Amino acid sequence: MIPYNAPIQDIRFTLNHVVDLPAVAALPGYEAASPDLVDAVLEEAGKLARDVLAPINWQGDQEGAVLDNGVVRTPTGFKEAYRAYAEGGWNSVPFDPEHGGQGLPWTLAMPIQEMWNAANMSFALCPMLNQGAVELLTEHGSEEQKRLYLEKMISGEWTGTMNLTEPQAGSDVGAVRSRAVPAGDGTYRITGQKIFITYGEHDFTSNIIHMVLARTPDAPPGVKGISLFIVPKFLVNPDGSPGARNDLRCAGLEHKLGIHASPTAVMAFGDNGGATGFLIGEENRGIEYMFTMMNNARLGVGVQGVGIAERAYQQARDYAKTRVQSRALTGRDPGPVAIINHPDVRRMLLTAKSQIEAARALSYLTASAFDRAKRHPDAEERRRAKALNDLLTPITKAWCTDLGVESASLGVQVHGGMGFIEETGAAQHLRDARIAPIYEGTNGIQANDLVFRKVARDGGETALRLLAEIRDTAAAAKDRPGDDMAVIGGNLADAAAALEQATSWVVETAKSDPAAVAAGAVPYLRMSGIVIGGWLSAKAAIAAQALMAAPGEDRRFLDGKLITTRFYADQILPQVHGLLKPIVEGHRAVMALDAEQF
Amino acid sequence: MIPYNAPIQDIRFTLNHVVDLPAVAALPGYEAASPDLVDAVLEEAGKLARDVLAPINWQGDQEGAVLDNGVVRTPTGFKEAYRAYAEGGWNSVPFDPEHGGQGLPWTLAMPIQEMWNAANMSFALCPMLNQGAVELLTEHGSEEQKRLYLEKMISGEWTGTMNLTEPQAGSDVGAVRSRAVPAGDGTYRITGQKIFITYGEHDFTSNIIHMVLARTPDAPPGVKGISLFIVPKFLVNPDGSPGARNDLRCAGLEHKLGIHASPTAVMAFGDNGGATGFLIGEENRGIEYMFTMMNNARLGVGVQGVGIAERAYQQARDYAKTRVQSRALTGRDPGPVAIINHPDVRRMLLTAKSQIEAARALSYLTASAFDRAKRHPDAEERRRAKALNDLLTPITKAWCTDLGVESASLGVQVHGGMGFIEETGAAQHLRDARIAPIYEGTNGIQANDLVFRKVARDGGETALRLLAEIRDTAAAAKDRPGDDMAVIGGNLADAAAALEQATSWVVETAKSDPAAVAAGAVPYLRMSGIVIGGWLSAKAAIAAQALMAAPGEDRRFLDGKLITTRFYADQILPQVHGLLKPIVEGHRAVMALDAEQF
Repeated sequence: MIPYNAPIQDIRFTLNHVVDLPAVAALPGYEAASPDLVDAVLEEAGKLARDVLAPINWQGDQEGAVLDNGVVRTPTGFKEAYRAYAEGGWNSVPFDPEHGGQGLPWTLAMPIQEMWNAANMSFALCPMLNQGAVELLTEHGSEEQKRLYLEKMISGEWTGTMNLTEPQAGSDVGAVRSRAVPAGDGTYRITGQKIFITYGEHDFTSNIIHMVLARTPDAPPGVKGISLFIVPKFLVNPDGSPGARNDLRCAGLEHKLGIHASPTAVMAFGDNGGATGFLIGEENRGIEYMFTMMNNARLGVGVQGVGIAERAYQQARDYAKTRVQSRALTGRDPGPVAIINHPDVRRMLLTAKSQIEAARALSYLTASAFDRAKRHPDAEERRRAKALNDLLTPITKAWCTDLGVESASLGVQVHGGMGFIEETGAAQHLRDARIAPIYEGTNGIQANDLVFRKVARDGGETALRLLAEIRDTAAAAKDRPGDDMAVIGGNLADAAAALEQATSWVVETAKSDPAAVAAGAVPYLRMSGIVIGGWLSAKAAIAAQALMAAPGEDRRFLDGKLITTRFYADQILPQVHGLLKPIVEGHRAVMALDAEQF
Repeated sequence: MIPYNAPIQDIRFTLNHVVDLPAVAALPGYEAASPDLVDAVLEEAGKLARDVLAPINWQGDQEGAVLDNGVVRTPTGFKEAYRAYAEGGWNSVPFDPEHGGQGLPWTLAMPIQEMWNAANMSFALCPMLNQGAVELLTEHGSEEQKRLYLEKMISGEWTGTMNLTEPQAGSDVGAVRSRAVPAGDGTYRITGQKIFITYGEHDFTSNIIHMVLARTPDAPPGVKGISLFIVPKFLVNPDGSPGARNDLRCAGLEHKLGIHASPTAVMAFGDNGGATGFLIGEENRGIEYMFTMMNNARLGVGVQGVGIAERAYQQARDYAKTRVQSRALTGRDPGPVAIINHPDVRRMLLTAKSQIEAARALSYLTASAFDRAKRHPDAEERRRAKALNDLLTPITKAWCTDLGVESASLGVQVHGGMGFIEETGAAQHLRDARIAPIYEGTNGIQANDLVFRKVARDGGETALRLLAEIRDTAAAAKDRPGDDMAVIGGNLADAAAALEQATSWVVETAKSDPAAVAAGAVPYLRMSGIVIGGWLSAKAAIAAQALMAAPGEDRRFLDGKLITTRFYADQILPQVHGLLKPIVEGHRAVMALDAEQF
């Protein structure tokens, strides 16, 4: 199995020169994120990812999680890896110091999450879901709830889960039917079945704290009648000691295409009269509370896409360096060469690499907008940062997870026939990556969110402000010396013009013809991802070129950055010119066919 | 499991109105392909696919083929399905009547192969590989070899296999090391290991006839020193009765991402001194012989792509018609609707449907060019048809198999979370589809074949002749009434202009800078597939519109054809404008990076 090495040099470059982590670290409350600490955190996280999480990834896929008489057994080594992860303090990185968190910026938490996901996506899902539960409790839990649950969920002693989906309530969470009946003592009796519950049951920890959406008896229909409950696997006594087993159980594990080591549970609540649930906040506000953690959850899934794309790329790259096959197309050597010398193999690798670096920057930028929205001393800056985070979140979720699949599929192809053999490991990445465009809101849902709520609702203000920045960067690139920079700046400016045209159309059309805008939403999101990725790549190239003359810099790395951006400008940015018609004209045919004509 | 229904109406429309099967059936030797017979063949094949092959597809994936003490057991029902297939005469459709074949055109054989692959790709691989072996023997076998083997391989009593790949000889078949030493009696002793041998061992038939590439002792190095041998599992006595077990065995089956029911064998030849092999033709001409069957083998894999794309599309379409989730974006109904009403679901389904219909037409057209090249009475027509078949073959193989993956991945996405659950069946199609861009020459190899051997070698003559036809169709579409036709014609003309520009660049650059052309080869092939697919779609739309007024026609179907082509014109054709730069400029960055900078 080809090992995983966290791309720390690229991560550090992106943090420092593309998304300006130093500025984030200067915000009040983030002072702990000094350059030395950042370096140490990245190095240590990289070691855990490489030495502990990555080596059990393939075997975990083969073994899978197993349900045996109500008990879930995770694959060999996973429990021990979780212990190492929790004991290392990794679970607490971005959380509130008041409850034991380290209070580090999300801008730093994201690169670490990228490493966990690259090393072992099935493993990383457990902390990812816990994170959502922690955020919910931090924002909306009572003091008593925080005291009882939060510290242990932050330390990693317990994990949290999210119980939203039911068979009839997938994308349409308003269709939830699980019931919550007041028990008369302030608690509720929860009954119902939840599906697709990630780490709904496992053997990592002594307790599992479920966040469950359910309806109270007189709740209004739809999303406005859903409440949110804490439903612990074991009830917790007021002194924090474990109490009785709650009335809930894992009724089954799904048999999935990928992420086999991650137990995806069917959860049955209330077989024996009702599980004891504790209301969070007020009744009927459950969906509203969910939204407070949704941006970060979606960003987290986007980062999964970056992580799995990187892992698949490393696997393909290292194979391409060692697999010898056929002579080179140019040169006189009649002997066979490593396939990394063949142009089309290079093209495939660079297609992955150039987009991964852009997607990495995008995901960190989205995190930095979250940090600024939370911590910036100036209210207008906070508002703008929040709007930017809102705009970038669906793009990050969808574009980065599509890239995860693309990179994993390219990775299989680079291997040739060996890519199709499971023992090689490349196929697992493709199987694992394929879930990310689906869960946490399908990429189609993300695209609808983008066009209607993030672009049209404010009349395009946030999107157009970002486009102005992009044009500035394109102009700055054109002012730099060299052909590569001229192409990078020129192609970025052309692509931004196409996005501006599409954005204006979305803003103008969203109210008058929402079906037309919805039909073009996915290509619009894709265009946005490509252009914003191109912008961040251009920023990286500009910084790399500027640094190249400085003493002590790694010129080989910086030169590679420039060439990689040139590749992106040549091969990825021009795709936007094939997307404008689908966005603005695609709906005619899309809406014309009868269901029976499909 | 959602059933498979062969799209016979679309197949018949494509055969009659897009690729002109009647003209093929009028060629000398193909008279048997009367309209009545064609209809009967399509109907009966559709029934076998639907009732026998499709129902065992998912279970076959779950069980997989198993190697037990040297014996391969195919999954439940596969042996019986093979018997039904062979007894129905389906194995013999396109082969020489002199040896028991039905002598029907390949233009008709391809739709049938599409059905087998859509219904059960793992099953269909066995006849597909046998077909290559039959063609080799038909073209190059001695009369004695034909007498002993050919009839039974055509009837389906025995199957044939292709033994090319070795661990060090994948894309580079010239690196084959298996040895063939003359035994002094006219036979050879074959030793060596072959990998990735599809149906190298199985339980369908009493004998398996292996076609094996190996080197004789004094052979020159590389592709010019490889000979081709018949190596039967059981030797065949001169009277055709079974003789001794030959010295070969299945040493293992691969554990693969997909096509689990198809045994992919490691074959060991000569553990006990050497398997008895019979030379085909002359020594050192094995690769040359292989090339005679390569076009059809590659076309067959392209048709697999069409078949699996269709299967995945049907699965997603039928799910989308029954899955109810969320209210419609337009209209007043507050209740949830079937998801086929949501614009983005329609967009995904039409992305598959529109390209499948184009790819279907392309694969049948390639087959018709093969038929004309073989049977046309005029030598110049034969030459042109051969050149067209040569040009279209790599495009069909690569573009259609990429589409198979795309359609299967879209199919998973349409299902949402259920798509990731193996029991749904959508995921299997993605796993199965993923092999087709790899085997029978990776799609990168196809692209190199296209640019260097098929486009540049004749100075672009064949490609430019085809482009002239495409322009004529675009003009004809623009002359038809209606907005849809104007867009179809206009976007096709624009796309053809881009392909012409790219073609000229390929022709001019292939000799002076082959690495540049190789770096742009895959995008060039993709552009070619999109434009040729758009051309054939436009032909279909023109025919559909013309037929719409005729009595007795299915107007709903014809109208659907027109809308589907309009979708292709809006959404697929414009992609070419994002491909021109990658083709003509992509090499700069592709070739600039050091291996260590990846």
